[in-house]
Amino acid sequence: MTPLRVGLAGLGNVGAGVVKVLEQNAELIARRAGRAIVVTAVSARDRSRERGVDLSRCAWVDDAAELAARDDVDVVVELIGGSDGPALTLARRTLAAGKPLVTANKAMLAHHGLDLAGIAEAAGLALKYEAAVAGGIPIIKALSEGAAANSIARVYGLMNGTCNYILTRMDAEGLDFDDVLADAQAAGYAEADPSFDVDGIDTAHKLSILAALAFGSRIDFAGVACEGIRAIAAADFVQAAALGFRIKLVGLAEASGGQLFQRVHPALLPAEHPLATTSGALNAVVVEGDFAGRLFFQGRGAGEGPTASAVVADLIDIARGDIRQPFGMPVADLAQLPPADPAVRRGRYYLRLAVADRAGVLAEITAALRDHGVSIESLVQRGPAENGDAMVVMVTHDTSEAQVVASLAQMEASPAVTGKPVKMHILDF
Amino acid sequence: MTPLRVGLAGLGNVGAGVVKVLEQNAELIARRAGRAIVVTAVSARDRSRERGVDLSRCAWVDDAAELAARDDVDVVVELIGGSDGPALTLARRTLAAGKPLVTANKAMLAHHGLDLAGIAEAAGLALKYEAAVAGGIPIIKALSEGAAANSIARVYGLMNGTCNYILTRMDAEGLDFDDVLADAQAAGYAEADPSFDVDGIDTAHKLSILAALAFGSRIDFAGVACEGIRAIAAADFVQAAALGFRIKLVGLAEASGGQLFQRVHPALLPAEHPLATTSGALNAVVVEGDFAGRLFFQGRGAGEGPTASAVVADLIDIARGDIRQPFGMPVADLAQLPPADPAVRRGRYYLRLAVADRAGVLAEITAALRDHGVSIESLVQRGPAENGDAMVVMVTHDTSEAQVVASLAQMEASPAVTGKPVKMHILDF
Repeated sequence: MTPLRVGLAGLGNVGAGVVKVLEQNAELIARRAGRAIVVTAVSARDRSRERGVDLSRCAWVDDAAELAARDDVDVVVELIGGSDGPALTLARRTLAAGKPLVTANKAMLAHHGLDLAGIAEAAGLALKYEAAVAGGIPIIKALSEGAAANSIARVYGLMNGTCNYILTRMDAEGLDFDDVLADAQAAGYAEADPSFDVDGIDTAHKLSILAALAFGSRIDFAGVACEGIRAIAAADFVQAAALGFRIKLVGLAEASGGQLFQRVHPALLPAEHPLATTSGALNAVVVEGDFAGRLFFQGRGAGEGPTASAVVADLIDIARGDIRQPFGMPVADLAQLPPADPAVRRGRYYLRLAVADRAGVLAEITAALRDHGVSIESLVQRGPAENGDAMVVMVTHDTSEAQVVASLAQMEASPAVTGKPVKMHILDF
Repeated sequence: MTPLRVGLAGLGNVGAGVVKVLEQNAELIARRAGRAIVVTAVSARDRSRERGVDLSRCAWVDDAAELAARDDVDVVVELIGGSDGPALTLARRTLAAGKPLVTANKAMLAHHGLDLAGIAEAAGLALKYEAAVAGGIPIIKALSEGAAANSIARVYGLMNGTCNYILTRMDAEGLDFDDVLADAQAAGYAEADPSFDVDGIDTAHKLSILAALAFGSRIDFAGVACEGIRAIAAADFVQAAALGFRIKLVGLAEASGGQLFQRVHPALLPAEHPLATTSGALNAVVVEGDFAGRLFFQGRGAGEGPTASAVVADLIDIARGDIRQPFGMPVADLAQLPPADPAVRRGRYYLRLAVADRAGVLAEITAALRDHGVSIESLVQRGPAENGDAMVVMVTHDTSEAQVVASLAQMEASPAVTGKPVKMHILDF
């Protein structure tokens, strides 16, 4: 059998990792794929950078899009990144040239995935993206194939290693967000501009892809309500722990009543929940199927090895001739689910307020809750900090988000409440 | 597209579950499979039993093997069980008739899997068995496809819900094995003859299948060293917890130095290890890949819903025309790895002895350890129990199993040691 010849665009850590996997495990991969898989052509900005891999037998092209048309390329791996620009051009050209595409590009899929899937489907080509979500965890395959017999009601998880690293260190070391972020940037765990990660956008990209696979619905990235981790303070971890919870940035999608609920937000999870013990740069995803029950997947969410492992798994599938629809069914069959109104969603909430340490403040706060029908499961007031403010921490009973938001707005109008209140969801399922 | 017509042999809980999944999620499954999947013919011992599903449109056959030749059957699902007998006859007839086979039968695969895979491969037929290991967890797919780019060094997990249920209750309620087993039998969680489960044989069947997939090696069920959970006492959980460990029945396979190590045994896991918190009837599997790193999968390991979910996932793959070699590569390519000698394997051990409460006993025990070069990390003697015996609990430093066995043999020869010592491995990776 002739080898599968790969054109590789993007030679950062993951690109170099793909070359390493294909070299180091060449014999094993050939047995599993039924044929050899070899990189024949590459494209990257800097030819001279030392990458720790031998690229001497590969052709180099300056414009990645040229990989699509090359005679010595059977399949293109896109690791350029970015939702549009060169990555999208290469993706379109590859499919237009009648070649399958492997990509790790969640931003491109979140924005153009349906479009690209439609093109791939019409041409009978594979478009595979195991590496786009949760690194080395084969969650795309697990959802679209392993759990395919199930109607899935909910999928949620920790899908951003940078956020999980920051939150884990804040928790373990009692540090505030800004300090850990600076450390993480210095150590290379966070980007100079960290907003894609810490504001939840990266998680939202991934969540929108998982939701489409789980529910058989159209990707709706614009419908993801997105809140990052900048507002969380060291004090929140202490209070959450005292209540038996850990704080994580959770991407959560649910389909019910013909509506799609998608949200990225910091949330409190019971300390014994498997997501609560998913620490550092690990990722994890929970899938709830109507027959399989709760499935839990955990592994390294990023980095050279895990991501390259996922890319090569896709290449092995392609080498074997496995062509599935990119989203598990024809694009035309994907349901258009309108977004659920988050305001009507019910749950328990964690609230933290900084308040002036004087008589009558608690009365104001509890009146604001009463006025909007929010009942309180527990309330703790902690004595004044150095700046003279006291801290009030509350856990509500089941209530709608709209009620909580209205209560908080009323509290914020009071001069006794200093600073922005912190509100987090408690996910106790 | 014409429907995929299923002949279903065995209508216990799982068989009825398969009918339910295909009915309840028919529309979704058809979208994912690209065609409808319908049960057209069934076989079971008792036609009259109420199963909660409508079988009125299915043909009934008395001899399951007849399903293979029927014109209205495209694929056979074997849920009869047992390594030989009617299950094996049906499997052979199905493949001989040129039809794909789906089975949940780990015993049959452990004993005849390579033989059946060879037949399927020669005929270009699918032989799929996602339901044979770890119920609803798509671990077969994860290992053979999701992690296919990796050289896998180790795979281990909790694969028997009955044992995990018993151990979890012993731990939580301080009960001894016999009491929980009797309860579990009364509640239907354990068989009247529980030996397949509690002696580790069921786990060994499953482990031998996972090892073949993980390492690209031939199934070697006979090479699994197998020890069950009957010797564990309530006291062991107390001592293990004090040392920071939980006790689980672990199936563990490693490939190194061209040898295959396969073992089922009760073992101590650090309390923070994800397997340690896998409780009750849950199953979980850890896969260690050279690039993906540690992957962890957890879910319901048995029962109607999860197992049926796995069977139907296989049917969807078959409906889509996904034909892979049953063990991820041609049978002829599977390596014949000789079994590793467990005696030379190094690790830490937990040892518990009942000893007479008199002077000189500790000297005898420590001399036995010294004589065989076993060094001790910690040793605790607990005061005499009601019967007058004292308990000695030890954790060794890294040592070979042969050394531990020799020390224990020397101790057992002493009249001061009453009863059989308990020895368990500490798995701290």
